[in-house]
Amino acid sequence: MAPSVRPYELIKAKRDGRELDPDSIREFIAAYTRGDVPDYQMSAMCMAVFFKGLNPVELGAWTQAMLESGEVLDLSETPGIKVDKHSTGGVGDKVSLSLAPLAAACGVPVPMISGRGLGHTGGTLDKLESIPGFKVDLSVADYRRLVRDVGACLIGQTATLAPADKKLYALRDVTATVDCLPLIASSIMSKKLAEGIDALVLDVKTGSGAFMKRLEDSRALARTMIGIGTQMKRKVTALITDMDQPLGRAVGNALEVIEAVDMLRGKAPADYTEVTLALTAEMLVLGGKAANEAQARQLLQRAMDDGSALRKLKEIVQVQGGDPLAIDDYSRLPQAKATADVLAPGDGFVTGIDTEAVGLAAVALGAGRQRVDSRIDPAVGFTLLRKVGEPVKAGEPVVRVHYNDAGPLQDVKARLLAAYRFGPQAPAPRPLIVERLE
Amino acid sequence: MAPSVRPYELIKAKRDGRELDPDSIREFIAAYTRGDVPDYQMSAMCMAVFFKGLNPVELGAWTQAMLESGEVLDLSETPGIKVDKHSTGGVGDKVSLSLAPLAAACGVPVPMISGRGLGHTGGTLDKLESIPGFKVDLSVADYRRLVRDVGACLIGQTATLAPADKKLYALRDVTATVDCLPLIASSIMSKKLAEGIDALVLDVKTGSGAFMKRLEDSRALARTMIGIGTQMKRKVTALITDMDQPLGRAVGNALEVIEAVDMLRGKAPADYTEVTLALTAEMLVLGGKAANEAQARQLLQRAMDDGSALRKLKEIVQVQGGDPLAIDDYSRLPQAKATADVLAPGDGFVTGIDTEAVGLAAVALGAGRQRVDSRIDPAVGFTLLRKVGEPVKAGEPVVRVHYNDAGPLQDVKARLLAAYRFGPQAPAPRPLIVERLE
Repeated sequence: MAPSVRPYELIKAKRDGRELDPDSIREFIAAYTRGDVPDYQMSAMCMAVFFKGLNPVELGAWTQAMLESGEVLDLSETPGIKVDKHSTGGVGDKVSLSLAPLAAACGVPVPMISGRGLGHTGGTLDKLESIPGFKVDLSVADYRRLVRDVGACLIGQTATLAPADKKLYALRDVTATVDCLPLIASSIMSKKLAEGIDALVLDVKTGSGAFMKRLEDSRALARTMIGIGTQMKRKVTALITDMDQPLGRAVGNALEVIEAVDMLRGKAPADYTEVTLALTAEMLVLGGKAANEAQARQLLQRAMDDGSALRKLKEIVQVQGGDPLAIDDYSRLPQAKATADVLAPGDGFVTGIDTEAVGLAAVALGAGRQRVDSRIDPAVGFTLLRKVGEPVKAGEPVVRVHYNDAGPLQDVKARLLAAYRFGPQAPAPRPLIVERLE
Repeated sequence: MAPSVRPYELIKAKRDGRELDPDSIREFIAAYTRGDVPDYQMSAMCMAVFFKGLNPVELGAWTQAMLESGEVLDLSETPGIKVDKHSTGGVGDKVSLSLAPLAAACGVPVPMISGRGLGHTGGTLDKLESIPGFKVDLSVADYRRLVRDVGACLIGQTATLAPADKKLYALRDVTATVDCLPLIASSIMSKKLAEGIDALVLDVKTGSGAFMKRLEDSRALARTMIGIGTQMKRKVTALITDMDQPLGRAVGNALEVIEAVDMLRGKAPADYTEVTLALTAEMLVLGGKAANEAQARQLLQRAMDDGSALRKLKEIVQVQGGDPLAIDDYSRLPQAKATADVLAPGDGFVTGIDTEAVGLAAVALGAGRQRVDSRIDPAVGFTLLRKVGEPVKAGEPVVRVHYNDAGPLQDVKARLLAAYRFGPQAPAPRPLIVERLE
C-alpha cells in the first residue's frame, strides 16, 4: 500500500480517537481485500473501532470501500427507482415473501439479495427453497433480467458482491468484533448497496427475538445505517418493529410460506400483515409510486384485493424454477409427518414469549441451522396457537409442533413450554411499529 | 488449545471488561507461543488490553506465561541473593557500567541481561562493545559460571529467554499496541525474571529524554512492575529518576565508558554519580549486604576508595574478552578524529535541554541506531560542557561534538543548538531522585 497510508498509523490514530481521513480508510480496506494488509492489523483496527467507533464520514468511506471491493450490480436497464427491504432478523419473520410481490405488483422493482437462517433466526432463502424447485442461486445476468421483466428477484449472496465484507466478517467472527455497531452497519449496507438499489427500507427488530434486544441499540443501528445511506446518497428509511414475540403464528420454512401466501389473500395474522404493509408502504413512497403512506396503503390493499400481488408471487416462483401450483395447493409443499401439542399448564394469559428460545427450539427441531453447514428440514416448525395477551385454559394446546423426527421432540416441547410465560392477567400490548426513522 | 480456553471467549471477556482467570491467560499465551493462537487473535487481545488493562493478578499470570515460554536460568549454584537493575532507558544513561562492578565488589551477584540502543536512547551492550574485544554474546553456561566466579556478567538477550515476548513484541510493533502499560511492564519483567534473579531494582526515568515523559506515567509503570514482582514473589523496588536532561556529561558509547570508569574513581559528574549510588545502594539492601541505605552507601564509598570496584570492572572486562588496559588507558578506546563545538548564542543560563532531541542528534551522528540493523560508530558522541542551570557566555562552547564523518556535522550541531534552551535566569533545580517506590 502507498506509504501515505501506513496501517500502523491508521490503527494508532483510531486507537487514540483521532478522525481517519476517507481516502486512507478506502486504501486500507482495499489493501486488506488484496491481502496487502494482514489479518492481524485488521483485527487490531476492528478492536480499536469497537472502542472508538466510526463517525458518519468515516463510516461512509469504510462502507464504500467494502462495496467497491467487488461488483456493484448495474440495474439501469430497469426503469424506475429500485427499492429493497432489509430486516435485522427475527423469528417467524416471513415479511420478504409477501413484501416483494406486493411492491412489484405496485410497480416498484425489488432487487433482493437475502440470507440463510443462522442461530435462532430464520432466513428468506431457506423459506423460498421449501417451495419445490425454487432456485436462489441464479446468475447475475438472470437476476438483472428478472428484476427488469418480472419486477422482483430473490437470490442469495454471490461471491462477487462485497468480498471485503466476507473476508472481514470471517475475521471479526473469531476476534470478538462482530457485535460492533459501525461494523454491523457497514457490513449490511455494503452488501445491500451492491445489489444496485436506489433506496432501502430497513426493518430493525427489537425485543427478545432480535439481535438487538434493547430499543436504544436498535435505534442506534437504524440511525447508523441511515447515516451510511445519506453519506452514499441513497434514500434510506427505517421502521423499528417488535420482535418480542414471533411475527405471525408460523415458525418454520414451509409453514411460513403458507402464512405468507395467506397474507396476500388477506387471511394472515394481523401483526405480520401490518408489519408487511407498513414496510411495503415505505417502499412504494421511496419508489415514487405513492405520495404518502395512506396512498401507498390503498395501492397495497388493491393489489391484495384484485389478486395482482398473488399473481406476482406465482410469477416469481415460476421464473425462479419453483412449482407455482404450490401457491394454491399447500399439499404440494413439504409437510411434516406428525404433530404434537404443547399444553397450557393452567388457566390465565400468555404474558410473554422468550422469542430467541423459540427460535433455538426450531433449530433443535431441524427447522433452522446452528452451523453454516447444517441441513434443515423444510417441513418442520411450529404453529403458535396462542400469542402474548391471549387467554389459555389448563390443558389447551398453546403451540403445535410439526415434526418428522421424534428424537428431539420432548426437548423441543420442554424448550417451548419454558419459553412461554403465563400469568393471571394479559399484559399491556407492546406497539408493533415502535418507531419510524429517516 | 483445550476447549476450556477458547481464544474468542477470552478476547470478548477482556473487551467487555471482565476479569480473566489466570489459568486461561497462561494457556492463551502458551498456545500463542506454540502458534496455536494466530496473530490476528493476539492483536485483537492486545488492543482490548490497551483499552481495558490487566489487573495485578491477570498481569502476574500474563508475565509468568511469557517467562515460562522459554528457559528460566537457574543460578542456584551462585550463593546469595542475585539482584539486577533495569532502566527504562534514557540519554547518557551509563549507570549499569559502574553499578554492576560496584554491587559485585560489595558481594551482591549481578546477573545482567541488557539491550542495545534503539531510537533516541543508548544501550548498555553498545557501550560495552566499545571496549576492544568485549563480548556480550556469551553462552548461558559461561554466563552462569561468570556470575558465580566473578560476581557479575553482562550479556545480551538470548533467543531461549522469554520467546513469547519476542514474538509478541514484533506483533505489537505493527499493531499500535506497544505503548500499553501492562504490556510494557510484562515484557520487561518476563525478560528480567528469566535471568534467574531474586530481586530487582527499577530505574524508571521521567522527563524529556524518557519514554514516559510525564511523572504520573512513570509512576504508573513503576507501580505496575512492582505489582508483577509481588505477584511473582520477587522483591522489586523502584527509583523514579530525572531524565529531563542527559545523565552526566558524556553521550556516546566510548565516551560513556570513560565517564563510567571515572565514576568508580570518584571523578564523574555529580548527577550520574548520585543516581548510580542510589540504585546500587538499593541493590545492596535487597541483596542483604546492607541493613539500610546509609550503610549501603558506606560500603559503596569504600569500594570506590579502596579500588575494589575498579578492579571488579577490569575483571569483568577481562573475563568477557575485553582489553582491561583500556580501563586505565583511555587511548586504547575508540577515539573520534575530530571535535567541533556548539557555541552559546548569548549570555545567560541553560534553562532546559530537550533530551530526546539530544539522543536523536547522537543517532544522526552515528552514535545510536534508528533501525535494529543500523551500524554504530563507538567513538562519536557529545561532551555536554554546560548542563541545565549552568551559566554561559556568548560564543562559549556548550557542547563538544566528537565526530569521524563531517557529513552530518552541521545538522547535528543545529539539532543540539535547537535542543538547548537559554534564558536570563537559572531555573529551579529539579530533583534527581524523584521518588522511591516499593
